[in-house]
Amino acid sequence: MSQSIQEQIQTFKQDQQNRGRLLISCPDQPGIVSAISTFLADNNANIMESNQYSTDPKEGTFFMRIEFECPDLPTKEEELKTQFSLIAQTFSMDWKLKSVYDVKRTAIFVSKELHCLRELLFEWQSGDIITEIPLVIGNHEHARQIVESFGIPFYYIPASKENRAEVEEKQLELLKEYNIDVIVLARYMQILTPNFVAAHPSEIINIHHSFLPAFIGANPHKRAHERGVKLIGATSHYVTNELDEGPIIEQDINRVDHRDDVKDLKKIGRSIERTVLARAVKWHLEDRVIVFENKTIVF
Amino acid sequence: MSQSIQEQIQTFKQDQQNRGRLLISCPDQPGIVSAISTFLADNNANIMESNQYSTDPKEGTFFMRIEFECPDLPTKEEELKTQFSLIAQTFSMDWKLKSVYDVKRTAIFVSKELHCLRELLFEWQSGDIITEIPLVIGNHEHARQIVESFGIPFYYIPASKENRAEVEEKQLELLKEYNIDVIVLARYMQILTPNFVAAHPSEIINIHHSFLPAFIGANPHKRAHERGVKLIGATSHYVTNELDEGPIIEQDINRVDHRDDVKDLKKIGRSIERTVLARAVKWHLEDRVIVFENKTIVF
Amino acid sequence: MSQSIQEQIQTFKQDQQNRGRLLISCPDQPGIVSAISTFLADNNANIMESNQYSTDPKEGTFFMRIEFECPDLPTKEEELKTQFSLIAQTFSMDWKLKSVYDVKRTAIFVSKELHCLRELLFEWQSGDIITEIPLVIGNHEHARQIVESFGIPFYYIPASKENRAEVEEKQLELLKEYNIDVIVLARYMQILTPNFVAAHPSEIINIHHSFLPAFIGANPHKRAHERGVKLIGATSHYVTNELDEGPIIEQDINRVDHRDDVKDLKKIGRSIERTVLARAVKWHLEDRVIVFENKTIVF
Amino acid sequence: MSQSIQEQIQTFKQDQQNRGRLLISCPDQPGIVSAISTFLADNNANIMESNQYSTDPKEGTFFMRIEFECPDLPTKEEELKTQFSLIAQTFSMDWKLKSVYDVKRTAIFVSKELHCLRELLFEWQSGDIITEIPLVIGNHEHARQIVESFGIPFYYIPASKENRAEVEEKQLELLKEYNIDVIVLARYMQILTPNFVAAHPSEIINIHHSFLPAFIGANPHKRAHERGVKLIGATSHYVTNELDEGPIIEQDINRVDHRDDVKDLKKIGRSIERTVLARAVKWHLEDRVIVFENKTIVF
Repeated sequence: MSQSIQEQIQTFKQDQQNRGRLLISCPDQPGIVSAISTFLADNNANIMESNQYSTDPKEGTFFMRIEFECPDLPTKEEELKTQFSLIAQTFSMDWKLKSVYDVKRTAIFVSKELHCLRELLFEWQSGDIITEIPLVIGNHEHARQIVESFGIPFYYIPASKENRAEVEEKQLELLKEYNIDVIVLARYMQILTPNFVAAHPSEIINIHHSFLPAFIGANPHKRAHERGVKLIGATSHYVTNELDEGPIIEQDINRVDHRDDVKDLKKIGRSIERTVLARAVKWHLEDRVIVFENKTIVF
Repeated sequence: MSQSIQEQIQTFKQDQQNRGRLLISCPDQPGIVSAISTFLADNNANIMESNQYSTDPKEGTFFMRIEFECPDLPTKEEELKTQFSLIAQTFSMDWKLKSVYDVKRTAIFVSKELHCLRELLFEWQSGDIITEIPLVIGNHEHARQIVESFGIPFYYIPASKENRAEVEEKQLELLKEYNIDVIVLARYMQILTPNFVAAHPSEIINIHHSFLPAFIGANPHKRAHERGVKLIGATSHYVTNELDEGPIIEQDINRVDHRDDVKDLKKIGRSIERTVLARAVKWHLEDRVIVFENKTIVF
Repeated sequence: MSQSIQEQIQTFKQDQQNRGRLLISCPDQPGIVSAISTFLADNNANIMESNQYSTDPKEGTFFMRIEFECPDLPTKEEELKTQFSLIAQTFSMDWKLKSVYDVKRTAIFVSKELHCLRELLFEWQSGDIITEIPLVIGNHEHARQIVESFGIPFYYIPASKENRAEVEEKQLELLKEYNIDVIVLARYMQILTPNFVAAHPSEIINIHHSFLPAFIGANPHKRAHERGVKLIGATSHYVTNELDEGPIIEQDINRVDHRDDVKDLKKIGRSIERTVLARAVKWHLEDRVIVFENKTIVF
Repeated sequence: MSQSIQEQIQTFKQDQQNRGRLLISCPDQPGIVSAISTFLADNNANIMESNQYSTDPKEGTFFMRIEFECPDLPTKEEELKTQFSLIAQTFSMDWKLKSVYDVKRTAIFVSKELHCLRELLFEWQSGDIITEIPLVIGNHEHARQIVESFGIPFYYIPASKENRAEVEEKQLELLKEYNIDVIVLARYMQILTPNFVAAHPSEIINIHHSFLPAFIGANPHKRAHERGVKLIGATSHYVTNELDEGPIIEQDINRVDHRDDVKDLKKIGRSIERTVLARAVKWHLEDRVIVFENKTIVF
């Protein structure tokens, strides 16, 4: 990474060193918020942002995301976890207590079309997306120049239907080597095998160039043109083994009309795709997205 | 119709008595615009608005809509048509020359949900939609009160799968009796037979409560909720014999999130449905919508 | 009010009889959420929705809105208030504990243009806005018919600059007589005196037909047209003694272009005005809007 | 410029070598369209896109933009102009007949904030904006790296209130030397003197970070925050000698809420600013924007 971005991340980490996040899901019942907030207050932590949602207040599942400031968090983090695990047990919670300091590590997969990659890199450079980007993997060479100009290693791994297993093996090795938390498919255009997907559950974010579930699969703009739609969309979702059926994180649309041919739709689509993907990635990096029953809760 | 709306339409007709519309489609070739505009200039007509589109300038189809002001149009209309038929022959045109004075006559079909009907009636009352509405047909009694409060006759014709043929016969008789040009299905919720559709080609406007082609058919909001979409839409289209597959006139969307249950989606959907349908109806009444190969050109 | 709407409100009250809202503002410090949520848990209340915001976590003001379900709320309400006042004292809270059962009472003020009034009445009839509407006051007769068709008493009180004091006296008497909580100026077009405003602080909601602070005052559409803007807006705000300077609740815009004259801007504006006002009123009725330093927090 | 963009522009020019544009304004009267379209038909030119507008059909000004394909345009261009000047005389037209082949030459002025510059460069690289960019001028060094990575010369000319005259002299020399048609102020943050503006009338495009006419002048985001607006905007306009009062080309907005502080507004604003500026620049380069009485007609 270029030095200025590296410095920017360091500054962020220093500023946020006492900032923590608590992520919880459990069966709903009275007393959960009380238990959590009392735990935080007892540890002298101040709640900065808090979101909760219950699928059904009677017998549903309860979800919560809290950002808090806790003095001396770096030294107290382990103790907090130990303490909290008792509360978690009482309420049968799935939970994570994380320091914002631990910035996530993102790998971007790309093919020939670079608009989504560019948007991510520039939002990243502007400090609007906070993450480490230790590598970009492309199945074509098109992205090398821009990626390397940001000081990021670029790995060219040609991929096709034929060599999928072999390619994914290499990719998984790299992801392991670089200790990657999040994989962003920035118009990568290759289908991943169940093996790959299983290795990174709810950690692979894709952008599909249609308003799902309309136009699942290939050539959505061509099919949108044939149908004569008046809006085209883009959808960012987590990758599952069902093509374009994973939990939707974000969607948006733009207006088109009869004058727009397939080429125009692609052009118009590019601006939505990059915006939608950047939002989804940002929310994921901030731990705002929770997957539940093939849907997302976005706090 | 109530007296004030009747007066409003009369005022409109008086103001617009010299306003005409020319609608054309023909194989594209150089010289078409020249021939049309020379014809108008020779008749001392001033072009007020003009829109054109060609599917392909080389071998495509050319479409044009012109609004013009022609002094003494009411007395000259027939002569203009005779003159123009010669130009039309030269270029193999499908064409219509219409006086704006001839306000279209609209029938609204409705069921239990009244939001789309209400929107149309109020846009109509405000003078934002110019049409005669000689009758409303409902397969339930829910709409009677509001319809009659506008001085419009309301016909209650219970409809179900069983009595479809008989019901449509009655409806077609009424449409003929009242000399109807446009049929608006304002959440009518019944499928029309090919017989009915054939009697009014490109004259039946429906509102579907999803962003087509996503969620074709029944219960789109329930299915949208299950899929976890982040936007819901509405689509207004001409009715054809393929369910929800007719030419799309207008679409729009609203943002939803994980907190919205199916009931909320319906509520949010209502506000898009009424807006989208009102726009589509308005454009149709102004002769702005041309159907071509199951798509629309909206001028 | 018409019987069906009356029944609808009764059903709502029955469904929501155990639903309460807690509204709080106080100096921020750790432990507030813990105290509140423990209080609710101790009373066996389940938190259904919770929102909080702090202007500055160090020395700022903390705001919270909680909706909860508490078994037997109607009988326990007074006891809850007594209990909570102790907590409130500890944290120097401004607070309200309210039963959702106590539906607010709204008066609508109107002049000649009826689009905002209509939107409110139909959202109300559809059950999307929950309130009692015991009266509508107009300074012209235009609204009488529609108001009375909903079974609401209509008071015609001609108002002008000359008789302002006298008129407001009558209005204030009516508001008192009908025990009104909220006053909605649905394009009322008269300026209220400080005396009137002081009698209903943060209870008078206005709709201004521009994107404030652009085009404060009279004729915003004419001035928008002269300036050649590409978007026009509408703003709903609480009324204060500074014209169009009160706390903004909601704003929205629509696209316009060079073809639109002032009359078109008015027409386009109407659809934003009614949407924006309806949203603002809905949020106010649900106690979602908190005024702080001439701004609003909308939960 | 980098080789690939250079090639892309060459391809565009080759594809479009027979594509011309005719831009007209004149007093409105019947016969104008007929004369123009007959002229084009006589020269075997096919109309590809046509837009017209009249401020008032009775005594107003008529505007038209036509794109046409004319065989052998490069060799016939001068003859067409000679022919058309006769028609132009008859109707007292202001007019331009241009070959699309003559791609405009753009200079970008920039300061420290680079988001608008980046957007323009990437839209340009993607082929969505067609222009030559022979130079970028910055009053800080921040943009040098990215500009030079695109193979564009970067001129660092420190500018402040004190040395304005001297700086502008240098800038004007460069613009002349590079034969510049369009100047884009991509968050340049310096006020230009009447002398500079007069040298490039309707050729200097600025982006202002508010929804004009709200928040004219400095620090619009700070003032928007103080006013508590619920939407923030951006406005692209031609520069005149009245600060932020020039003809508006395009505007757009994004939603904000009480949680957003001034820093957030800036962040959110950046994404609107770059979109709005890119659209305005694109439309200007395609000769779609006509200035009339301090407003724009955008065809």
